[in-house]
Amino acid sequence: MHQTFDAALEINLLHANQTGADHNRAHFDEWGITCFNIMSSPGAGKTALLERTLAALSQELKIAVIEGDMTTELDAERLREYGVPVFAINTGRSCHLDSKMVAGGIHQLKQQYNPSGFDLVLVENVGNLVCPAEFEVGEHAKIACLSSTEGEDKPLKYPIMFQEADCLLITKIDLVPYLDIDINRIAANVRQMNPHVTIIPVSAKIGEGLDVWFDWVKSKLLNPKKSLIHA
Amino acid sequence: MHQTFDAALEINLLHANQTGADHNRAHFDEWGITCFNIMSSPGAGKTALLERTLAALSQELKIAVIEGDMTTELDAERLREYGVPVFAINTGRSCHLDSKMVAGGIHQLKQQYNPSGFDLVLVENVGNLVCPAEFEVGEHAKIACLSSTEGEDKPLKYPIMFQEADCLLITKIDLVPYLDIDINRIAANVRQMNPHVTIIPVSAKIGEGLDVWFDWVKSKLLNPKKSLIHA
Repeated sequence: MHQTFDAALEINLLHANQTGADHNRAHFDEWGITCFNIMSSPGAGKTALLERTLAALSQELKIAVIEGDMTTELDAERLREYGVPVFAINTGRSCHLDSKMVAGGIHQLKQQYNPSGFDLVLVENVGNLVCPAEFEVGEHAKIACLSSTEGEDKPLKYPIMFQEADCLLITKIDLVPYLDIDINRIAANVRQMNPHVTIIPVSAKIGEGLDVWFDWVKSKLLNPKKSLIHA
Repeated sequence: MHQTFDAALEINLLHANQTGADHNRAHFDEWGITCFNIMSSPGAGKTALLERTLAALSQELKIAVIEGDMTTELDAERLREYGVPVFAINTGRSCHLDSKMVAGGIHQLKQQYNPSGFDLVLVENVGNLVCPAEFEVGEHAKIACLSSTEGEDKPLKYPIMFQEADCLLITKIDLVPYLDIDINRIAANVRQMNPHVTIIPVSAKIGEGLDVWFDWVKSKLLNPKKSLIHA
């Protein structure tokens, strides 16, 4: 639950959130951890993408997940199957993670593990194409997922998410033959407002594009040498 | 943009919104207009459903649309093709319509037309499975759309929307053969928290289920006799 407010209150809220995000990022930097904030509409396939990512990379990289959901630990339970620490945060009526909630996950990581041993923290945000884009949580990169099934016009209609994204994954491309959409038009709509974003079409189901995504992940590590030590 | 607040502020906000919603509904009741608030994730097919609904019912019923989007009039333009009044509301950074925004649409309806001549106002909310469910706009029924592509677990993970819905449309069922989902499990998950909700599986693309939806719409008219006069 939330509301649009007068400008002063809005600035204060975003300012407080930003201060918390900067604090979280300072911890990640100190420990040599790269953090991604993964966002999309509900059901665009964030958790399926994380399952495939953990299956492919969790031997090579030491990964933890901070899993945001309004309620339930359904997604967290799916990801725990991959043998990595998953810190579940229930946001209740809030439609996005904020930096304070993510600080709670970081606190658990620090209490239960040696955080300097980790390479990557994947934050899975609440499914929402609007508000998560405005609340930084301390990430080094924002990953937006857009399902092929959502249509070509979404980047134009929900601009903030697509302006803010460092990497856009167009998901469920195995369904494209059954849809009236053109991935190139989606890409063109995104590039209108964010010319330099990395765009990777993927299907977690049939595996297409995932190697490109894994390579991108590895190319963004703060501390590539640390992962070589694990390997 | 929004945030979760302390309880007192939250209660004030929802209270102010509710007062506005009651005011809007009193206008609709006075004019004999039925109002539906149509909500879903981005890209679940609300606009496609409205296109089919206007094509099927706009001869028989006098319909207006209040169209909420963060930005652009893309959806409003699609619906204007059907020859009905469409009042576009851009919510800017807000992730939902509130009763004050919808009052703006009602004001335009009243200025430009004789509102008592209308049977039905369809409000298309911003694509978001979280917050629109908490902000009444003066509707007589809440319609939630859930795309088959979003997966079986969404009712459990985004409970408020599914608790509040009077009618749930499971959309894009033409894609079910290509998905690993079971519509009966979606229905069972919804009924766990809302045993009496009407559930209608539909495909705007191939037309399946739409007649059931049109009959449901007509069964909810405040003033069925008025529509007989138009016919």
